[in-house]
Amino acid sequence: MLHFLLLSTLLLMAQADPFQLDALIQYVDSHQDEYVETLRDWVAVESDSSDVLKRAELEHMMDITAEKLRKMGGKVELVDIGDQELSDGTKIPLPKVVTAQFGSDSSKRTVCIYGHVDVQPAKKEDGWATDPYNLTEINGNLYGRGASDNKAPVLAWIHAVEAYQALNMELPVNVKYILEGMEETGSNGLDAMISQHNHTFFSDVDYIIISDCGWLSRKPALTYGTRGNCYFLAEVEGPKQDLHSGVFGGTVFEPMTDLIGILDTLIDSSGKILIPGINEAVAALTEEEMKLYEGIEFDLESYQRKIGVDRLMYSSKADLLAHRWRYPTVSIHGIEGAFSAPGTKTVIPAKVIAKFSIRQVPDMDPLLVEKQVSDHLNAEFAKRNSPNKLKVTMVIGAKPWVADLKDSLYEAGKRAVKTVLGADPDMIREGGTIPIARTFQDVTGKRIIMLPIGGFDDGLHSQNEKMSRYNYIEGTKLFVAYLHEVAQVWKVVI
Amino acid sequence: MLHFLLLSTLLLMAQADPFQLDALIQYVDSHQDEYVETLRDWVAVESDSSDVLKRAELEHMMDITAEKLRKMGGKVELVDIGDQELSDGTKIPLPKVVTAQFGSDSSKRTVCIYGHVDVQPAKKEDGWATDPYNLTEINGNLYGRGASDNKAPVLAWIHAVEAYQALNMELPVNVKYILEGMEETGSNGLDAMISQHNHTFFSDVDYIIISDCGWLSRKPALTYGTRGNCYFLAEVEGPKQDLHSGVFGGTVFEPMTDLIGILDTLIDSSGKILIPGINEAVAALTEEEMKLYEGIEFDLESYQRKIGVDRLMYSSKADLLAHRWRYPTVSIHGIEGAFSAPGTKTVIPAKVIAKFSIRQVPDMDPLLVEKQVSDHLNAEFAKRNSPNKLKVTMVIGAKPWVADLKDSLYEAGKRAVKTVLGADPDMIREGGTIPIARTFQDVTGKRIIMLPIGGFDDGLHSQNEKMSRYNYIEGTKLFVAYLHEVAQVWKVVI
Repeated sequence: MLHFLLLSTLLLMAQADPFQLDALIQYVDSHQDEYVETLRDWVAVESDSSDVLKRAELEHMMDITAEKLRKMGGKVELVDIGDQELSDGTKIPLPKVVTAQFGSDSSKRTVCIYGHVDVQPAKKEDGWATDPYNLTEINGNLYGRGASDNKAPVLAWIHAVEAYQALNMELPVNVKYILEGMEETGSNGLDAMISQHNHTFFSDVDYIIISDCGWLSRKPALTYGTRGNCYFLAEVEGPKQDLHSGVFGGTVFEPMTDLIGILDTLIDSSGKILIPGINEAVAALTEEEMKLYEGIEFDLESYQRKIGVDRLMYSSKADLLAHRWRYPTVSIHGIEGAFSAPGTKTVIPAKVIAKFSIRQVPDMDPLLVEKQVSDHLNAEFAKRNSPNKLKVTMVIGAKPWVADLKDSLYEAGKRAVKTVLGADPDMIREGGTIPIARTFQDVTGKRIIMLPIGGFDDGLHSQNEKMSRYNYIEGTKLFVAYLHEVAQVWKVVI
Repeated sequence: MLHFLLLSTLLLMAQADPFQLDALIQYVDSHQDEYVETLRDWVAVESDSSDVLKRAELEHMMDITAEKLRKMGGKVELVDIGDQELSDGTKIPLPKVVTAQFGSDSSKRTVCIYGHVDVQPAKKEDGWATDPYNLTEINGNLYGRGASDNKAPVLAWIHAVEAYQALNMELPVNVKYILEGMEETGSNGLDAMISQHNHTFFSDVDYIIISDCGWLSRKPALTYGTRGNCYFLAEVEGPKQDLHSGVFGGTVFEPMTDLIGILDTLIDSSGKILIPGINEAVAALTEEEMKLYEGIEFDLESYQRKIGVDRLMYSSKADLLAHRWRYPTVSIHGIEGAFSAPGTKTVIPAKVIAKFSIRQVPDMDPLLVEKQVSDHLNAEFAKRNSPNKLKVTMVIGAKPWVADLKDSLYEAGKRAVKTVLGADPDMIREGGTIPIARTFQDVTGKRIIMLPIGGFDDGLHSQNEKMSRYNYIEGTKLFVAYLHEVAQVWKVVI
């Protein structure tokens, strides 16, 4: 009773209206055209982080983002994260990271929303049907570079806070933002920034929310895992310079032949990894998990059609999803140092470097994988009795990230989805790696949820990227509801 | 007796001095500095046929060559050989081919000397110790791009004729020249030109002489064979576009894995070709041939040191030379369509094209090789049970060329070498392909000799290409003597 009175008193002191989801939803609906216009303004900024010549545009994008949050009354900072070294050795400043804070009530939970406002490159002539930097609505889809990845989700989180403010409703949680401008080129500088601000900006954060991913189908989804990645270089070095294949062919052990020989021992034609120890390290697939996969909405045929192949590696949905999410695989990306141009060249390349990677899943350990791959390739190479030299290096060792499905953060997500979208979300994983999730987990120790609102067919990184108006607006409502739901989540996993 | 009188009368009518090798040799010796100066002028012209921006230089080179021969009284033509199509579809004229004729006495043999005056690219910053287009003499070596390949040999043939003229000695044979400007980029337009002029320019030619090659050691050599080359593209096509290896890895049959798998079935680590039928087609190695190889001056250790490897494929001289000259081999040059740049990229390439070639030797038949390779790769690919598509194409099918060692053209060569250089030449082959030899043989039906004067360590196509003053000047004398010797060769092989 005392508790109730205290709470009522506090609410009165804040002079805020009580939480009314209907009113918030109505507000979002009636402001959706404004939201689309803001997205149009943001998409118009060519914030391509991969092109240093576009750096002024990218910095402009960070300024716009900061200004938007400042106008909403947030405590905003543009955090200097150091320099980027270009290939010619010159250094240019990295785009600053925007941080913002709304509320600092220690009696509330504090969520931190991560997102990025830089984009992949795009040119009309790459095959876009519309100007990639002029948001164009066709049949309910908003086409433009960065629309889904990640500008609309970032704006949706901003609009969610705006809606509470507009209706004079108290924010159920303190909301922080960390919005970067280098995600598309590897989040240069962000890891160090997170470490440096671990005991300041992150100290009062309870949960980190990432919406830089998408649904698997038309059904809403919550993402609870990503694969990691161990990326290897295997270099075979022979003659001291490239040789003419006519003049020298037949008299030397060719590095390319050796390299092809050892690459062929990594994975067989049925997708089975041949490196001893890798498969043994993979966590056993549980029946519960298989059931989860079987219940997920996922159309094998349309997936196959989208990729454009005659046959997929697995013919059942559960097998396919399992191999996309929770089993490792080997991909050979290419070979540096060999002849790769169109046309013909009769060269024996002197030094060739294969690039391949192994997707990491629990309970694989990148350090052990490094040793397993190195030992295996060296043993296979030794069998060849070649005078050439093999050097195996692991250049990326990103761990997988998996959340506890029972974490109340996810329960809150399910409730919010059910309330706003009227469906139970599919619990899905990403086959790719979102290293920032693991960094947040390892550095800050905070609990993380991935709450996607992007469509399954948004064409991230491709031509004709889009965000549907439906996903953008309903996604904003979902975030409004999630802020309410997450306020009730216990700080410890129960 | 009548014959003798007639011959004497003819000689008197021509008012020429009788052949005196000593006088010719003395003349060459006393004019060697002039020859070096002419070579300096020629090397100064950056006649790089691979760079269309240098086309004016190349055309200037053809003009200089034509002018030189014209001033000597030759009947010179600049033959239009059509256009070159650039990668953007535009057409530019090919550099004209220079033909020249000295003498048309039907009672004499007629030799046709083939050479080229275009060069490979070269830049000081590639690692040249001297300016590649400023001929620089250091310790008896004349450093400069094109010095050995092929400007000095072409000039040596010109100086040889000049020497006869200067001493008022009748040329023992009619001498024709065919000098091109596109050799380094594949003799574009030359095959068609030879066919077109087969019954005109080539009709009275008895023998064709090529000096676009080098010795094997410090010992002079005559070249009696070259390997051919079958160049293949093996394309594996899968998804309709490149895929992200995280998002899709594990669910698709990756074209790169398939390609690596089939490439690994071409040749084993000991150099044994695994394609059925190839080894069986190779002409048996005779004891006579092995003896020839054993007698050749060739230092395995310095060859190995030059290449910079710890071990060669064969440890005996005869084995090594046999595998360089008279056995086929497979070289894998590279892969187009995969990731080949420095750095890391997590791509599943959608379409990858391997480039590999098989050096051809007697009695291999390129058309049969095409079928053998295609059948083999398709069978290996079928074993993989992949939904991807394999396409195997042979884009070059150049036959080997081998002369009869007993051909009197070669006997004449041996006599000339013995006379001028005081040694018996080694009879050698080239591991590489000189397609023009085979074209001359197939189109004109003429007998051919390769008479090299380049050194074994001239660094063709590399940095610091050179021609030694010794080889240039003694080579000129050798050509003087060969014109005399070849005049006595029967028109049919005996």
